[in-house]
Amino acid sequence: MVRWEPGAQDRLRQAALELYLKQGFEQTTVGEIARSVGLTERTYFRHFADKREVLFDGQDTLQQAFVDSVTAAPQDASPVELVAAALAASAEFFPAERRQWSRQRQEVIVANPPLQERELLKMARLTAAFTKALRARGVPEPHATLAAESGTTVFTVAFLQWIADGETRSLADVETEVLAELGTFAEQLSGHGSDRKAARRRSPAAPTRRSRE
Amino acid sequence: MVRWEPGAQDRLRQAALELYLKQGFEQTTVGEIARSVGLTERTYFRHFADKREVLFDGQDTLQQAFVDSVTAAPQDASPVELVAAALAASAEFFPAERRQWSRQRQEVIVANPPLQERELLKMARLTAAFTKALRARGVPEPHATLAAESGTTVFTVAFLQWIADGETRSLADVETEVLAELGTFAEQLSGHGSDRKAARRRSPAAPTRRSRE
Repeated sequence: MVRWEPGAQDRLRQAALELYLKQGFEQTTVGEIARSVGLTERTYFRHFADKREVLFDGQDTLQQAFVDSVTAAPQDASPVELVAAALAASAEFFPAERRQWSRQRQEVIVANPPLQERELLKMARLTAAFTKALRARGVPEPHATLAAESGTTVFTVAFLQWIADGETRSLADVETEVLAELGTFAEQLSGHGSDRKAARRRSPAAPTRRSRE
Repeated sequence: MVRWEPGAQDRLRQAALELYLKQGFEQTTVGEIARSVGLTERTYFRHFADKREVLFDGQDTLQQAFVDSVTAAPQDASPVELVAAALAASAEFFPAERRQWSRQRQEVIVANPPLQERELLKMARLTAAFTKALRARGVPEPHATLAAESGTTVFTVAFLQWIADGETRSLADVETEVLAELGTFAEQLSGHGSDRKAARRRSPAAPTRRSRE
């Protein structure tokens, strides 16, 4: 029979993060984490599959929030509205009181290349699940991929800014700013592409590898 | 001493893809691949680390092309120009004669979830390397991440369209179209965000979880 320890999961998560910060992720054992809050290794493994899981189970919930927001959107929602709903859900997922945790978690991940890889894979999976949810809502390819990648780009960039030193704005406000930046950047890039194309048209004999010269 | 088999790498690559398509990735052994072109397993392992590598070593080269194009750009290149250079390099990387290979490779990957995961991770690594190259060129965060993610989004979406059935345009032309689409999408999304923010300002008492209701 599984004994339920009230609050054990949160206590283990906090204890793990503190130990990872203090002595490094690799140097910390599950036994140490559990003992530091008066619990056993067995209790730890009832809550988390391994040492990494305390850092990454939130990403599964975040992924679900992206997918749910798409699934729950009104029947006639446009791709733009579906992505906006997912971004709103992501902003709700990270209220101000979560910022300190997110900053410390980032510090642990940046210090450990295998954790960085895990983070990359988790975000890539989130984007894939988001794309799939958009397709299920009738957004055809390649538009579903464009919409999902744009949405997760905005989230990723805004999140990075949200946890930056001294940043105090809400994630929703930072996302709004990043959205505007993405629009400007994409427009400039698109304009640049057209210039290049026009230039190519004007001088068809120009070497095609020019851009790398 | 390593004996060099002229063209062995390409022959092994083609043979592997054909067997993966015909009988499935999991069902194919390295021995079969090698024997089908009159080579030995040992020769195979001189060229590729494992069964997956024939499908994925091109992505390492692609990643290098992204990074090199950033490194080689003129000193005064703007972030937009750096990303445009990377996109141009990606388009050169996939000339028309590579389309058939890319289509068949995609077919193998779509049929095998672990290969899909590998593809996700490889693209995420490419984006990370691209971001790092942009930072090295003086693009500060979070702009480097925004620029790199925008660039790889355009590449990913354009590539998906480039290998679609019946598509005959060059990758460069598809990228130009996707760039315009990304601009429009980001602008609409940004406008949508502003509407939402304006609405929130007008009715400060509105529930903040509204977007998921």
